[in-house]
Amino acid sequence: MSSVDHSLYNNDWYKREIGAGKIKQILWYFINIVFFINPLIAGSRIKKFWLQLFGAKIGKGVVLKPAINIKYPWKLSIGDYTWIGEKVWIDNLADVKIGKHVCISQGAMLLTGNHNYSKKTFDLMVKGIELEDGVWIGAQSMVCPGIHCKTHAVLSALSVATKNLEPYTIYQGNPAIAVRQRVISETE
Amino acid sequence: MSSVDHSLYNNDWYKREIGAGKIKQILWYFINIVFFINPLIAGSRIKKFWLQLFGAKIGKGVVLKPAINIKYPWKLSIGDYTWIGEKVWIDNLADVKIGKHVCISQGAMLLTGNHNYSKKTFDLMVKGIELEDGVWIGAQSMVCPGIHCKTHAVLSALSVATKNLEPYTIYQGNPAIAVRQRVISETE
Amino acid sequence: MSSVDHSLYNNDWYKREIGAGKIKQILWYFINIVFFINPLIAGSRIKKFWLQLFGAKIGKGVVLKPAINIKYPWKLSIGDYTWIGEKVWIDNLADVKIGKHVCISQGAMLLTGNHNYSKKTFDLMVKGIELEDGVWIGAQSMVCPGIHCKTHAVLSALSVATKNLEPYTIYQGNPAIAVRQRVISETE
Repeated sequence: MSSVDHSLYNNDWYKREIGAGKIKQILWYFINIVFFINPLIAGSRIKKFWLQLFGAKIGKGVVLKPAINIKYPWKLSIGDYTWIGEKVWIDNLADVKIGKHVCISQGAMLLTGNHNYSKKTFDLMVKGIELEDGVWIGAQSMVCPGIHCKTHAVLSALSVATKNLEPYTIYQGNPAIAVRQRVISETE
Repeated sequence: MSSVDHSLYNNDWYKREIGAGKIKQILWYFINIVFFINPLIAGSRIKKFWLQLFGAKIGKGVVLKPAINIKYPWKLSIGDYTWIGEKVWIDNLADVKIGKHVCISQGAMLLTGNHNYSKKTFDLMVKGIELEDGVWIGAQSMVCPGIHCKTHAVLSALSVATKNLEPYTIYQGNPAIAVRQRVISETE
Repeated sequence: MSSVDHSLYNNDWYKREIGAGKIKQILWYFINIVFFINPLIAGSRIKKFWLQLFGAKIGKGVVLKPAINIKYPWKLSIGDYTWIGEKVWIDNLADVKIGKHVCISQGAMLLTGNHNYSKKTFDLMVKGIELEDGVWIGAQSMVCPGIHCKTHAVLSALSVATKNLEPYTIYQGNPAIAVRQRVISETE
């Protein structure tokens, strides 16, 4: 069997895909630590300011809880009235597009980076994530690279979305499987 | 299909259930960061002091490891000789009652908040958790809202308790299922 | 049924197995917080320096990302060109031996401590972990005490290795089961 050799690893192609210069990257690295990862910063407003300054599209009424970790704001868009919970980790090496009225609960992770384990060179692979309107990503769960969570899909706590989630469907487990439909009553 | 609308979300009823005034909440928010989440604070004694001052019931011989995160101490009781491991997250929007000789291992989470995904208004729902004497909650695992873990039940690492755990029974997986009995020998 | 009694817990035997004096342990405790857990320290070099000073064997080309948590460096060896990802937690109460060209992705945990849940005294049990060359431990996953991951095995994201992983085999779930073979093409 052939072996993987990390000394051959080369992600220079990705460095040209980052979409920001070195200084912008370094500045964001520290702003992310001081204003996002840092639990002392409780409010959403200052976070919204920094995210927008660094190129994120942030809708109105967005809630950004403490201790969030965001890789590249310029690859992030968040729709109106969406909530990002405590300790959510948006590891967006690729574009992450989050719709309106989405809830990402505490400790959840959106993962966009992967490696080609069939190559000696263990090549980096990145794929974006899309969460459509009304999606709920449960506490401590994970959305894998390239996954599209369709409108009002639900991923249960500590579950792993390895395939696209269908609309109005509730998923659970690792890998997550569909367990029931989500029916939303018309009345308030 | 109807859509969820976070702009209609209203948790004012819950604000009256928190059981502490605004100043007490803010003080705790910062004490939790400085003395609990902060890994520099290694010992149990100072944590026990703060928890009791803010209304928690803490038994004798309780061990409180570094980097713990506790939402509301006034909704927490911990029995004698119980251990709370490193990075345990007690997200107790509702009462969490932990018995004697319980072990909650590193990185585990007790989750008490939920949302009604069948309502446009995505209503907050909170339910307490009870862990009876001798329960062991494994590393990085999760206990869901409303769950009652009966005496000496065990939840394995990274597993998710979505239903009550029966006495002297070991559970594993997501959702966790019973995998074997726990027999404790009479001899030391 | 008999009950567990933490007041009888005695891990004095382990204190003699730690392999470092009290001062060394305390120094490492704070160095781990300041230079490893602290996300402000981005680079690998300073971390390699501290690990080696405290007795770890670290190969060439090792990458040590921010926010890593390492229990005892004197019980750690890491082979050439191995990558330790962001927020990886190496909870090595016992020896952890990591081969060459290994990748431990962000948030993964190597767990070496356990308790004997069949004893009233809830005895501490520790067992080392070995990851052979070319192994990939996925994001947020967990390797349990005593587990041997053989050459080029892969553990998927958020999965739990409760049994040894066979060579060139991909595992997923909790507990992780073999899901397919890993074939590495000869060509780059």
